[in-house]
Amino acid sequence: MPKLRVHNVTVTLDGFATGVDQRLDAPFGDGMEGLHDWMFAAMRDHADGKSGIDAGFIARSEENIGATIMGRNMFGPQRGPWQDESWTGWWGDNPPYHHPVFVHTHHLRPSVPKEGGTTFHFTDEPVETVLRRAFEAARGRDVRLGGGPATIQQYLRAGLVDEFHLTIAPLLAGRGERLLDRVPDGVAGYRVAELVSSDAVTHAVLVRR
Amino acid sequence: MPKLRVHNVTVTLDGFATGVDQRLDAPFGDGMEGLHDWMFAAMRDHADGKSGIDAGFIARSEENIGATIMGRNMFGPQRGPWQDESWTGWWGDNPPYHHPVFVHTHHLRPSVPKEGGTTFHFTDEPVETVLRRAFEAARGRDVRLGGGPATIQQYLRAGLVDEFHLTIAPLLAGRGERLLDRVPDGVAGYRVAELVSSDAVTHAVLVRR
Repeated sequence: MPKLRVHNVTVTLDGFATGVDQRLDAPFGDGMEGLHDWMFAAMRDHADGKSGIDAGFIARSEENIGATIMGRNMFGPQRGPWQDESWTGWWGDNPPYHHPVFVHTHHLRPSVPKEGGTTFHFTDEPVETVLRRAFEAARGRDVRLGGGPATIQQYLRAGLVDEFHLTIAPLLAGRGERLLDRVPDGVAGYRVAELVSSDAVTHAVLVRR
Repeated sequence: MPKLRVHNVTVTLDGFATGVDQRLDAPFGDGMEGLHDWMFAAMRDHADGKSGIDAGFIARSEENIGATIMGRNMFGPQRGPWQDESWTGWWGDNPPYHHPVFVHTHHLRPSVPKEGGTTFHFTDEPVETVLRRAFEAARGRDVRLGGGPATIQQYLRAGLVDEFHLTIAPLLAGRGERLLDRVPDGVAGYRVAELVSSDAVTHAVLVRR
């Protein structure tokens, strides 16, 4: 059975996935500088064929993924209705997905095809419906769920996440949006199967009990 | 200068230090079974002269401590006024402190001397005053701050903690009392100096910036 998987979602030591005031020059908000430094370094190592704990998690995150789901806050910094449709994501002309990407938003717009096989689809359907469409689009491969935290919490509350890799960075935010919050029953079905640190960060893998 | 240090305070992966319904047979509340298993194993290893990441943190926690401060919730499971004074802590006739212990409580009672040098003092004074008394009692050595979370948060908000070792156990609570919560400015003065995992848990050490 294909799975819904979360990978590389990084929080501060105090559990925040985003700080306050997300914007173009601070996509994760204030105080979150360096949150994903481990990931960019590990992606370079992985691309260079180097191994290591962090690069290993990057490799796992790329295996057997046929579609991606994300929240609108991960697609862009805008809030509310689109002012225009010139924004087509953070990732340039050839985004690193190379498969269909479903973006949850209350503000629909036409699909955006990109180079390299990535197409962004915008949907206001319930999570169960979007997941079904994503599994169809993935043609037997797994579906990856991106952020932001609110989107991940929705899927956790619905019990739809099969595997959840989260990373803890040695930062303190103090305020912002917590990842594992408002999901008291959402986490009850999971156990922590792995907990391991590299020189840079700590990785945890949650799987179904 | 003597320091105020926190050691071995353990939270779940989702950041909870206590679950709900703390009571005599579940001192940390529901869903927290096994939270401190790493600590008991590491204390045995340390006592047996074995080394290792966890035993090393136990060793550090015992170095150069002359007094302890804790909240009433760490002293016992009772809430509200004492029904009687028969409860004298979780630790039997010879508690493992061997120095003065200051217990924050709104419900004062006479000091309780124990075997082995431990005396429990009960105080409703402000944290600054209690810390000053503890430093005096420690006679030049450091003071250790125990839990629960509300007590640690009070000292963090007051900017009084010098070193903070916290441990993340591979558990998920979903609900309860978070450790690093309601301290947005309390954590601003700290950086994460260490982040390391053993086979059992992850340790983080916060120090002043």
